[in-house]
This record gives sequence, structure tokens and C-alpha cells, in this order.
Amino acid sequence: MRVLTGIQASGKLHIGNYFGAMKPMIELQEEHELFTFIANYHSLTSSKDAEMLRQYTLDAAVDYLAIGIDPKKTTFWVQSQVPQVLELYWILSKFTPMGLLERAHSYKDKVAKGIPASHALFSYPVLMAADILLFDTQKVPVGKDQIQHVEMTRDIAIKFNNEYGELFVLPEHMVQDEVATIPGIDGQKMSKSYGNAIEIFMDEKPLQKRCNKIVSSSTPLGEPLEWEGCHIYNLAALFLDEEAKKELQARYKSGKEGYGHFKKYLKELIWEELAEARERREYYLNHMDEVHDILAMGAKKAGDIATEKMEKVREAIGLL
Amino acid sequence: MRVLTGIQASGKLHIGNYFGAMKPMIELQEEHELFTFIANYHSLTSSKDAEMLRQYTLDAAVDYLAIGIDPKKTTFWVQSQVPQVLELYWILSKFTPMGLLERAHSYKDKVAKGIPASHALFSYPVLMAADILLFDTQKVPVGKDQIQHVEMTRDIAIKFNNEYGELFVLPEHMVQDEVATIPGIDGQKMSKSYGNAIEIFMDEKPLQKRCNKIVSSSTPLGEPLEWEGCHIYNLAALFLDEEAKKELQARYKSGKEGYGHFKKYLKELIWEELAEARERREYYLNHMDEVHDILAMGAKKAGDIATEKMEKVREAIGLL
Repeated sequence: MRVLTGIQASGKLHIGNYFGAMKPMIELQEEHELFTFIANYHSLTSSKDAEMLRQYTLDAAVDYLAIGIDPKKTTFWVQSQVPQVLELYWILSKFTPMGLLERAHSYKDKVAKGIPASHALFSYPVLMAADILLFDTQKVPVGKDQIQHVEMTRDIAIKFNNEYGELFVLPEHMVQDEVATIPGIDGQKMSKSYGNAIEIFMDEKPLQKRCNKIVSSSTPLGEPLEWEGCHIYNLAALFLDEEAKKELQARYKSGKEGYGHFKKYLKELIWEELAEARERREYYLNHMDEVHDILAMGAKKAGDIATEKMEKVREAIGLL
Repeated sequence: MRVLTGIQASGKLHIGNYFGAMKPMIELQEEHELFTFIANYHSLTSSKDAEMLRQYTLDAAVDYLAIGIDPKKTTFWVQSQVPQVLELYWILSKFTPMGLLERAHSYKDKVAKGIPASHALFSYPVLMAADILLFDTQKVPVGKDQIQHVEMTRDIAIKFNNEYGELFVLPEHMVQDEVATIPGIDGQKMSKSYGNAIEIFMDEKPLQKRCNKIVSSSTPLGEPLEWEGCHIYNLAALFLDEEAKKELQARYKSGKEGYGHFKKYLKELIWEELAEARERREYYLNHMDEVHDILAMGAKKAGDIATEKMEKVREAIGLL
């Protein structure tokens, strides 16, 4: 089954990204034909600085390769290296009623939050439809807030297929098991924009410092601690199986250890979990030519599929 | 000075097109660096049939070459053969506030006329901006109803230039001398959609038949005729210099000739005016390979310029 995912290139990755998006994505490549692209045409919409966008794009490539995207299994490319998607985007616009876009929640939400209402922001779901349809995608893993976009993609594809022939596969969304909300150091949902994130690729000392900043209750050392509702516990639990969780709970209750110990333990868990990824990341950062080669290989494969598809689309629709 | 014009591929050309758009365009190539493309991405918006769109695109190529587009002087291509324009279209969308598009008269007018409000129809001015800016266009010949689109193009270019560096030439509109409204056979403005047009490339007999259908007053033969307000006279006058107009007015007043004579005379004028064009058209229709070669040559030249420009744009904006 062909599964397509897009990666936003928006800076340093944190534990929330890791458990919420990256790990589930990596798992997909074992069972499915995974197509993954770094969505820099999309990121452009909110970008303010060219150098930063370029850097974020390469960072995302390195980080995802480090985490385990296997270019032998997964077709992995940068969106702007397969510009055919923008030709499909224009063509699909013919099949996109304005009412469909006007009803899009995510546009309304973003504008309500004060993001300037540009045409790119507005028409984003049409580009997303092109991303999906260009590659005969069958399944699109999405968060709940993105289900509507996959439904819009289906609507557009159905309209095209009805009028010009059955050229597009109708994709289905695939809502992944909800990961419990991952708390940041202040206990709110971890998010880059809240400034409460713990980045996954920090050096060991800054990582410990960051963990030390996690807000905890003021129970004095020597007394039993509550693991329920403790942000340190909740973060640590992400890395633990049931047995290990029980053990940690027991340590909380024993009263022999304080929050400082658990913050050290959490740091260890993060550090261990990402040991392999950190090594791969180091390797790729020192071999950026290989990263470029991998992306070029992905762009070639995706581009060949795109070119073939667009020949059919152009023929079907009457473009010379 | 670089001048850019787009041609809608929308079927058989008539005398209204000829005097209103084609002749003035041909004249431009003598004094300016003319870039002319057949706007089939735009035509797609209103197209319902692939074969028809393809045929209209080729018809437009043949007709404009017949009328006198000189591929040695003018860069002449089919829009969809330089798809780089759609990458620029997406990028410009970032610099296009929704309010700008929402204020576009032509979108509102079209929707008011019952044309379905698709995203392609709505975003058409952004594609037009990409058409213009991709080629460092200095002047854009437009009808009065299109001035707003050139102004929107300037607004978008200024926004880009301010934020990412002076990459785009600010185009100016160029309103051509107003041709007096050209009447159709029923006296209303000649328009394909009114069914009152006289096509320029008809065979001689059907052309005479068509001229014979021009509505005239019922003054009986032998009496002096009014040339003022006579549709036959108004059409004939398009082909005549001042002296020849006076002569025709005299013939009207003499009372020796009836409308039938003037309809024959009009047919002769049309037939003569287009003699050379008809010959060239016949030639190209029998040598379609040459037409394809000319378009390929134009697409190559326009494509090279587009590629070079897009490299700069991608670099400036941070695309990999």
C-alpha cells in the first residue's frame, strides 16, 4: 500500500515531534511503500528568511535520516525538487470550488490566530491534494485536524475523474493511534511556539539542564512523591514499557529519591533512546554530499513517477 | 522594450478579434521585443473538452502565424510548454493578500454571469502576474478591463522585491488606441458568444453569405442610403482610409446602389485584407510540423529565460 507523508521544515525537532510524528512514520516504512517529502513549498508560506528555510530543509533531511528513514525502503525527497506538483496544483484548481476552500477549518483558524491571509495560505489544501494525487497515494497518515484536507482531496479527485476519466486514486486518511499529549517543561503541550520543548538532538549537558527545568511540585527530598500528574514521569513514561513504568512508580513512592534523580533518569532515557540516531546524525552532518545524493535519488524516483503521471493528466485535459 | 501578450485559445477568430487584438499585436513586433504565448493554462479554466482545448491551441498558433506573427522577431510559445510559470505562480501566492484577489472585478463579474466559482478562476490574476514577471516584462498591452490585473501584478512584485530583493521588473500597462466597437451582423458588439461574428478565415461563399446576413434598414433599392449607423458601412470602414471612406459615403448617398452591393463590397474588402494571411494559413495547415517546430523554438527560448529567472527566485527565497 502506498502511504504518503509530508514533513514541515520548521526547525529543531523535539520530543513531541519524535513520539507524535517521527517514530510512527519510521514504523510505516516496514510494512508499506512509504513516500516522504520535505514540504518546503508549503513551509515557504510561513517563512520569512531564505537562509533559514534552506537550512531547515536540510536539517529536516538529516534529522529524519538520523531517526531512521531508510532511503532504500522509502522514497525521500524535497518537494521543490519535483516541481511537477505545481502543474498538477494549477490543474486541480479547476476542479476546486471556492466554497470547498472557504469551508477549510485550518485556514480560518490560522487567520483567526493573526497569520496574514495570503493566497498561498488559502490555497494550501489544493497543493496538498496535488501532493497526494500525483503519486497515486492510497493512505495519508494525518492528525485529526487534517482529516478534512484528505476529504477535500477526495472531492477534487472525484470531480476530475468524473469529468476527464478515472486518473486519480482516491486516498484515504489514516489516523494514527493517539499519542497522549506530550507535556513540555512547563506541563503545557510541548510545542516549539510555546518555548517549552525539549529538543531531541541536544548535547548531553544542555539536555540535562533542560530536563532540570521541568516544573515539579515542591515536595521535600525524603518524602514519597506523586508520579501521577508529574511531568517528569509523564515524559519518562514515553520511553518505558509497562514493567519499567511500574518500577518508576515504585521509586516515586519509596521516598528515597527526589525530583533531581528523576530528571537525571529522564535525561538518560532520552540520551539512550537517541544514541543510534545521534551517531547517524553526526555521520550525515559530516557527509552532507551523501544527504544531497539521497535526496537527489528520491527526487529522481518521485520525479519519474510525477512526469509519467503528468503526461497522462496533460493528455486527458488537453494541454499541448 | 519587452512587451508581453497572451492569446486565449478559444476558437475561430473573427473581425472583432482581428482589429481589436491581432493587428495591434502584430504591429508591436516591429518596434518592440515581443513575447507572445497561447494561454492554454488559462483557457483550461473554462474548457470542457480536452480535444477542443488542444485543437483551439493549435488553431490559435496557426491563425496568429498566418496573420503575421514572425517567429524570427517574436518569441512565440504555448504556455504549458514553459511550466516554470506555475512554480512562480505558487511563490507569488505568498505575496498575494487575499484581499487583493477578493477585490478583482473580473472574478466578481464572471461569477455574477454564472461561471462556476472555481479556485482557478479566483486565482487567475496570480497566474497572470507570474506570466508577466517571469519574463521581466516592461509593458503589457491590455484592454481597460485588464488594467487592474497589471496593477495587481505590480503590487505583488513590489511586495516580493521589498522582502526578498529587487528581482522583478515592475510592468506597466499599455492601453492601446481604442478601436471603435466593432458591430456583429446584428449590430451588437461582435462577439463569439453572441453568435453574431464574421470569422476571418471563412471560404469565399460562406463569407458572402455571412455578410449578406448583416441587418440593414429597409430602404428600397434606388433611393439614397444612410451610411451613418449602417453596420455594413461601419464594418467596411475598418478597412478603409479616409479617402476611401468618403468614396463609400458618396456611393451610399448616390442612390444608385443597394445594401446588396455594399455587402458584396464588404466581402471583397475582407477577402482582400486577408489574402496573404489566408495563403500563409493554408501553408501552415499543410505543414503542421513547422508549426510545432516554431512553437518548440519559442518554448526553448522562453524556457531558457524562465529557468534562469527561476534559479534566481529559488535562491532568493530559500528553495533547495
